[in-house]
Amino acid sequence: MAEINFLEIIDLLGTAAFAISGARQAIVRKLDVFGVLIISFVTAVGGGTLRDVLIGNTPVAWMRNEQTIAIILAGATVTMLVNGLYRKLRNTLFLFDSLGLGLFTLAGVDVALQAGFSPGMAIALGTISACFGGVIRDVLLNQVPLIFHKEIYASACIAGGVLFFGLRYLGIDNTVNQVLCICSIVLIRMVAVRYQLSLPPIQKNTNT
Amino acid sequence: MAEINFLEIIDLLGTAAFAISGARQAIVRKLDVFGVLIISFVTAVGGGTLRDVLIGNTPVAWMRNEQTIAIILAGATVTMLVNGLYRKLRNTLFLFDSLGLGLFTLAGVDVALQAGFSPGMAIALGTISACFGGVIRDVLLNQVPLIFHKEIYASACIAGGVLFFGLRYLGIDNTVNQVLCICSIVLIRMVAVRYQLSLPPIQKNTNT
Amino acid sequence: MAEINFLEIIDLLGTAAFAISGARQAIVRKLDVFGVLIISFVTAVGGGTLRDVLIGNTPVAWMRNEQTIAIILAGATVTMLVNGLYRKLRNTLFLFDSLGLGLFTLAGVDVALQAGFSPGMAIALGTISACFGGVIRDVLLNQVPLIFHKEIYASACIAGGVLFFGLRYLGIDNTVNQVLCICSIVLIRMVAVRYQLSLPPIQKNTNT
Repeated sequence: MAEINFLEIIDLLGTAAFAISGARQAIVRKLDVFGVLIISFVTAVGGGTLRDVLIGNTPVAWMRNEQTIAIILAGATVTMLVNGLYRKLRNTLFLFDSLGLGLFTLAGVDVALQAGFSPGMAIALGTISACFGGVIRDVLLNQVPLIFHKEIYASACIAGGVLFFGLRYLGIDNTVNQVLCICSIVLIRMVAVRYQLSLPPIQKNTNT
Repeated sequence: MAEINFLEIIDLLGTAAFAISGARQAIVRKLDVFGVLIISFVTAVGGGTLRDVLIGNTPVAWMRNEQTIAIILAGATVTMLVNGLYRKLRNTLFLFDSLGLGLFTLAGVDVALQAGFSPGMAIALGTISACFGGVIRDVLLNQVPLIFHKEIYASACIAGGVLFFGLRYLGIDNTVNQVLCICSIVLIRMVAVRYQLSLPPIQKNTNT
Repeated sequence: MAEINFLEIIDLLGTAAFAISGARQAIVRKLDVFGVLIISFVTAVGGGTLRDVLIGNTPVAWMRNEQTIAIILAGATVTMLVNGLYRKLRNTLFLFDSLGLGLFTLAGVDVALQAGFSPGMAIALGTISACFGGVIRDVLLNQVPLIFHKEIYASACIAGGVLFFGLRYLGIDNTVNQVLCICSIVLIRMVAVRYQLSLPPIQKNTNT
């Protein structure tokens, strides 16, 4: 019971964070109101939707739950209206985005475990849930997805997922474990951005 | 009975309209025969396919129905052969495209209602059915989807969907209601294009 | 029994071939390790995943089978490590890619037949299985999909699919038929590339 409520809160917070970050990117690209709403929506639910479609969990999550749509509309609308505040809120928004990343990874792992998948597959599905909303957003904005060539992003999700199964193996309480892993993902992401860490591009030696 | 037939005709007309408009765009981008067929196909069935995948209505609609494929092949082939006639048929093709938009919105609303979704979700699914074929087409042609930054397009679908539930609430006969709403969508679209109306981009004040 | 094993080997060989070709393209575009793995993965399983999602065959194939993921990881890793060998292996890699194309087409046709689809739909699903991994790869790399404007690629799959149903009608043994059709697809592709054959773009006469 407590766990279900915790996961619901996870889901709503993560959704709001991603909706706001998606709306911001769409505004920067000068889309109209409808475009901003759609990009906001896709960023927030794209990863979970892809996960649900791949495992056959339909209708997909956001269609079973009016709250999700309400939160996204609210997040996108506020972002459009208070856009002048962007510079002031920069750090808060980055924290939101990192929280969304951690929250969605663990929610995805949970869905995968409930559907009977192995730990490896659960980590993959958690990473897809967390990262592919941003991938679909970038594709719609006609860009090579950011996470393929910049920043520690998906790697943080994978690390968080591995940690989750490690702690689970040690018998840690599930909710405590989820909170710990979400915090780890947020931390990895923050350290990576602060110190501008990123995965190296694969060097192609064209002379050999 | 009459209603089923009406919806089938809706579907075939809308499919032909979208196939032709998709083929035209692919030709402008100098794709080969196969590319034109695929873009034509994706434009015509993409929205309905996404709707069906999201609600778990599989195999998706066009796989249950050989007619759809036949109509698309015919539409794309005619477009490739009579392409010289483009300027003469410009207005007719625009009418077709607008009709497809209205037709697909109402067909999507109908599918959603039969699957037990709420009016709000039905309007969303109707709009997805009508607009996302074009979104997928634009993504494949490597463009930011037109409907995110130009023209009244999705807004017309949403308005038509709202009107449908208003008239339904007043007890209007379903088929009459569908025809009325399709006409409204076509009308909104035509007025918008004639007077070059579009949603404003969200202004980003970068100095505050 | 023999047929099942043959199809499994088909699947693994085709997967490795596509994973390697996908990894190469991602490396050329200077993606990081994670980006190379995802593009490699998407190229290898994207077509089959789209096929499975469209027919409602979920969880999709690669989620039911840890071998697929292992093979892709191995293929992508080797490609990242031995990248200096690219020029030496150019012809081998092209052969792999062509083999993957033939192998995936026939595997897709087989899945479609087992799901009760008509020959026409089976050929379409086989072509989707073989070609749409590359389409999704190109979309993620922010390019107009190669197969829409260059080279004989999908056409070879369609020809192989038609040949399969022709020989099947003549009563040829299924496994023999599959091998023959895979070889035909490889052959068509090789001849097309050798002699630089491609489908013509549709000519748009803008003066009439």
